[in-house]
Amino acid sequence: VPVSPEFQRIARYFKPLAGAEALGLADDAAVWAPAPGHEAVLTVDQMIEGVHFLADDPVNYVARKLLRRNLSDLAAMGAAPVGYLLTFAVPRETPEAWFAALAEGLAADQAEYRISLFGGDSASTNGPVSLTATLIGTARQGQALRRDGARPDDAIFVTGTIGDAVLGLEAARGTLADPTGCLTRRRLLPSPRVNLDFAGIAHAVIDISDGLVQDLGHICRASGVAAEVLADAVPLSEAARAAGPQWLEPRLTGGDDYELLITAPEAAGTALRAACGNVPLARIGRIKAGGPDVRVLDQHGNQLEFQSTGWSHF
Amino acid sequence: VPVSPEFQRIARYFKPLAGAEALGLADDAAVWAPAPGHEAVLTVDQMIEGVHFLADDPVNYVARKLLRRNLSDLAAMGAAPVGYLLTFAVPRETPEAWFAALAEGLAADQAEYRISLFGGDSASTNGPVSLTATLIGTARQGQALRRDGARPDDAIFVTGTIGDAVLGLEAARGTLADPTGCLTRRRLLPSPRVNLDFAGIAHAVIDISDGLVQDLGHICRASGVAAEVLADAVPLSEAARAAGPQWLEPRLTGGDDYELLITAPEAAGTALRAACGNVPLARIGRIKAGGPDVRVLDQHGNQLEFQSTGWSHF
Repeated sequence: VPVSPEFQRIARYFKPLAGAEALGLADDAAVWAPAPGHEAVLTVDQMIEGVHFLADDPVNYVARKLLRRNLSDLAAMGAAPVGYLLTFAVPRETPEAWFAALAEGLAADQAEYRISLFGGDSASTNGPVSLTATLIGTARQGQALRRDGARPDDAIFVTGTIGDAVLGLEAARGTLADPTGCLTRRRLLPSPRVNLDFAGIAHAVIDISDGLVQDLGHICRASGVAAEVLADAVPLSEAARAAGPQWLEPRLTGGDDYELLITAPEAAGTALRAACGNVPLARIGRIKAGGPDVRVLDQHGNQLEFQSTGWSHF
Repeated sequence: VPVSPEFQRIARYFKPLAGAEALGLADDAAVWAPAPGHEAVLTVDQMIEGVHFLADDPVNYVARKLLRRNLSDLAAMGAAPVGYLLTFAVPRETPEAWFAALAEGLAADQAEYRISLFGGDSASTNGPVSLTATLIGTARQGQALRRDGARPDDAIFVTGTIGDAVLGLEAARGTLADPTGCLTRRRLLPSPRVNLDFAGIAHAVIDISDGLVQDLGHICRASGVAAEVLADAVPLSEAARAAGPQWLEPRLTGGDDYELLITAPEAAGTALRAACGNVPLARIGRIKAGGPDVRVLDQHGNQLEFQSTGWSHF
């Protein structure tokens, strides 16, 4: 039985990435069970050339960003990552180096986040390169963090800095200088805030993927509350600050941050900071009673009006 | 907070499909645990316009075939399906009716196979329509069926009939008449053989997705054995028989059957037939000692030579 090029590639590039659950990538499916007292937490995201990444982005970074976008969703649920299933579709003439770089990126983040490949599917396409990853994590029974627990008077916190990735995209478009390369790096390789334990501290958590305003809006809708954000309190990197205040709206609505947004009682701030360890945490506003609404206020308390509230695919 | 068109679509078409595990499709990930004494069985497949389906295939059938291809992988592991995660990418100008038809197809097979939507991701694309499904099933601890248990002198069985879908593709290309529409129906809507309980009976199981010869080859490689198949014993539908013997090679190497191929001791045939219930089962050959090799024999015992051994994407 001759082995097809597809299965040769699986053996060469992907078997070394496979965990025991993958059964050597030689069976129809993976077999896995969460540890006793734990539940599975499952999420999926896709990346398409020309939509989620640029045609000349290095493929090892594309692979890592794909994993990291999903890892950020697990982080928002308070789940510890375990493994993933991968699909990709590429043109038939894709050079061998592309597969090697894909595997190299996956291997780097498997080591970084202690996850392994459970299985997948590859295909040819006449269209743009596309990839999906289904991430599998675990949380203690009943302890997964949700979006629907925010309460009036909760303080609103975010990790890290906001708006770098969208400014990195502007830099790629040539509309903004990025002399240090910091903004570009944040666009290519986000840092999902995995393995922070907010159970018993946070009321609601979401990861910021579609823009701070829109994602905070999801918490407001799920929790039946409103939110006020102080624009000046939103943490900026030095590079984002250097870009200037005219980028305020893209920073708050542009997305691709993969930071966590957390609501918790004011008094829980110290515990929350302790749970964050070395990850920076900033208080940016407050949850209010009322229908779902996100108000961004300037330093005078006046509400800012934005053209866009965040990323929509349609 | 205005709701984006993307989230309006999620609410309209996909929330009605969501199980409790999906948390109303309003959180970052799904939460689910297998029943006590069970393991999770996980698989993913993609379908791309122009590769896995034709541009004018009805989208409700595309949705169902996507689920069924994955359900067939679970069936080959002896796993009971539970739920799925879905991704799709479509052009921005996709009409509302497309989403409605997608949801209708998913709903039909959710009812047929008693599964529910756990979560997903949608995106726009400038390329062909693409979809993936990650299927989640369960098997009793340690009871998942594998490809690596075939032993010399096992009989080889297949369910249903072989080769209809690839002839249905020839019909779509205009190279073959399909007066009854049977071949076309088999291409559009396979019947995965879920919920057959071969545990303790079968030595090895695989589903036939890339062609009988290639998929039997996977069992041979995983098990360290050879296989002999009697071409005349491979079960044909009336429509495939009517197409004529010149289609022998495509039938055995073309794929998209989503039938199960099972190896088991000769003496287990009766138990296997009983486990199949109403699903037809045919004995097509025998496992032999020796290196991985699939030999297809004609009625005189002479080995047939094929140009292709099965579907490869690259």
